[in-house]
Amino acid sequence: MKIKIKKDLLLEGLNKVSKAISTKNLIPILSGIKFDLTNKGLTLTASDNDITIQTFIPVDKNNMTIEVEGSIIIQGKYILDIVRKLPDEFINIEVIDELKILIYAENSEFNLNGINKKEYPNIILENSKNFVKIRTKLFRAIINQTVFATSNDESRPILTGVNFKIAGNILECSATDSYRLAKKQVTLNDSATETYNVIIPGKNIIEFTRIISDTIDEIEIHIFNNKVLFKHGNMLFQTRLINGKFPEINNLIPKESILKIKASLSGLYDVIDRASILTSDKEKNIVTLETNNNLLIVKSSSAEIGRVEEKMNIVKDKEEDIKISFSAKYMMEALKSFEGDTVELSFVGEIKPIIIKDTNDKNLTQLVLPIRTY
Amino acid sequence: MKIKIKKDLLLEGLNKVSKAISTKNLIPILSGIKFDLTNKGLTLTASDNDITIQTFIPVDKNNMTIEVEGSIIIQGKYILDIVRKLPDEFINIEVIDELKILIYAENSEFNLNGINKKEYPNIILENSKNFVKIRTKLFRAIINQTVFATSNDESRPILTGVNFKIAGNILECSATDSYRLAKKQVTLNDSATETYNVIIPGKNIIEFTRIISDTIDEIEIHIFNNKVLFKHGNMLFQTRLINGKFPEINNLIPKESILKIKASLSGLYDVIDRASILTSDKEKNIVTLETNNNLLIVKSSSAEIGRVEEKMNIVKDKEEDIKISFSAKYMMEALKSFEGDTVELSFVGEIKPIIIKDTNDKNLTQLVLPIRTY
Repeated sequence: MKIKIKKDLLLEGLNKVSKAISTKNLIPILSGIKFDLTNKGLTLTASDNDITIQTFIPVDKNNMTIEVEGSIIIQGKYILDIVRKLPDEFINIEVIDELKILIYAENSEFNLNGINKKEYPNIILENSKNFVKIRTKLFRAIINQTVFATSNDESRPILTGVNFKIAGNILECSATDSYRLAKKQVTLNDSATETYNVIIPGKNIIEFTRIISDTIDEIEIHIFNNKVLFKHGNMLFQTRLINGKFPEINNLIPKESILKIKASLSGLYDVIDRASILTSDKEKNIVTLETNNNLLIVKSSSAEIGRVEEKMNIVKDKEEDIKISFSAKYMMEALKSFEGDTVELSFVGEIKPIIIKDTNDKNLTQLVLPIRTY
Repeated sequence: MKIKIKKDLLLEGLNKVSKAISTKNLIPILSGIKFDLTNKGLTLTASDNDITIQTFIPVDKNNMTIEVEGSIIIQGKYILDIVRKLPDEFINIEVIDELKILIYAENSEFNLNGINKKEYPNIILENSKNFVKIRTKLFRAIINQTVFATSNDESRPILTGVNFKIAGNILECSATDSYRLAKKQVTLNDSATETYNVIIPGKNIIEFTRIISDTIDEIEIHIFNNKVLFKHGNMLFQTRLINGKFPEINNLIPKESILKIKASLSGLYDVIDRASILTSDKEKNIVTLETNNNLLIVKSSSAEIGRVEEKMNIVKDKEEDIKISFSAKYMMEALKSFEGDTVELSFVGEIKPIIIKDTNDKNLTQLVLPIRTY
């Protein structure tokens, strides 16, 4: 392999694929990045066996000169540092004596030990005929509005993932850690020819949203039995799926309510934020909300530290008043997922789930379970 | 105590003094901030027994209304969070029933448990008649150029401090961890009436440079036997001194050289930075520098990873060539302390200290010891 390539392009590709390199990985070869050079361009691949990222840099006469085609595995940590720190516009990479890698620019010369491509695992990144297309910005929004509600508890793996359900042109994403729940429904431009119901690991999908770019308009979602492949411009991102059946969350969301209140989103967020200053993380930052006519009062207290009382104006749909306690942390995370000015909270009772929606957009549903304080 | 005070002013004061609150402190009362309100204004004090920070907010008719004078200790963590998060322009603080603190604004009310001021340690923040004055910007520069060379090893406490020597109108600051050394000499506007030679804990002085403001022109240094007090506008910062005798560092700096080279500061930094990519932290990032006529070559190698060679042009004062190895980390930290375009490195021999100076400013001296590699 022998190539002269524009530094910025190579660095961009290395930065993307290196997100798949785990520093904790026990398989040494997976700390490497695979370089595959053909007359069409350079393909970079990295994997930690859980996710695989591949990016392709197509050749054009200004960005690279391909002298000898070939493949090699280079230690990810070093190649990234070298390319980042070289000041030159172009960088030369050459494999000599099969496994010796020479990286050079005007005043710099690096000799690295490479690894034979035969030792790299054979990772299949195949397309599905029936892929689904979604706009990049919309995809990012859906993930940000749901993934925070996944669980970190590996003893119930299903809850560490985001449930993707596709039927026709409707995509429904949901996540729950059994204390709160987030659900977002969107309409796709095209209908899917198959229906899907899969669970994608939350951590992996966060990693994917970090390397996608709004300048590339679309994402293709190729779903298989045990894995999903995202195509985004010249980048492929593949992750395993979580086996199992996701809870039927629509059954958990109450249809009726005894009281609905409308409140300013930022006002409500700040009131709960301040009310939770004196609470402790150990108690999940419990605060108590109560209504008194058109006044909302949020309180918390701790025998050792003291107590706090915050007030704000709201609009109610009924005469009814409510008093209910919940985790300020969970409620604030739910509120953060909205973008409008006003939210609506629906109450069914003191020990029944609280539903939060935007007053103008019914496609996002947040649910927070109350906490018994007596 | 009862006061109505402008939020921004109170927050600024709390932010400053809270730097003295250690989360690890074992004495509960030292997690509190002392409020002392008189008809002159509000004094805030915090201490961790190692450093003490006090700031005074003088009354004027637009910034506070003093209703009842008095003192109270408030938990630092909570008062800071409350004041930061309240949206109001003015905040009311009132002590009721001796130890109950009421903090309120338009829609918020906090009740905190306070601590009696009698339980707070009696910290004396006295002035010295013979204090020394220094410009804020100059003080910050001196500390940044020396403190990084202090040691973190508490088994030799003297080396964890910065040595301040004052004689006449000359201030000399130095620091060394026995592998490298930094020395800065400056001329003060006024002569000191006494001579001083003290060691100030490096960590504490870094904390002080973080809360000083260039908008306040001067710092007064009041030096005592076992402590030093800095006055900076309305703020007082006191730290203990380290007992003992600092090494006579001027004896360690070679006066002669066998070779001097001049090099671009940023060029040399980058060359060493890249040469150290393949070195490991465990080996203190050893690189080897050698001259060959007007070429400087910096190399490093590791049997497992590979090797690197970097070149740049330099100017030499003699025909002589040198080959010398050192810690890239220490050399880069030394180079970072310079502000000019060109530095001069003086060599005495392969196993003798390397001296680095700015070609135009002889007041800053950096010394890095070489490392034997054979």
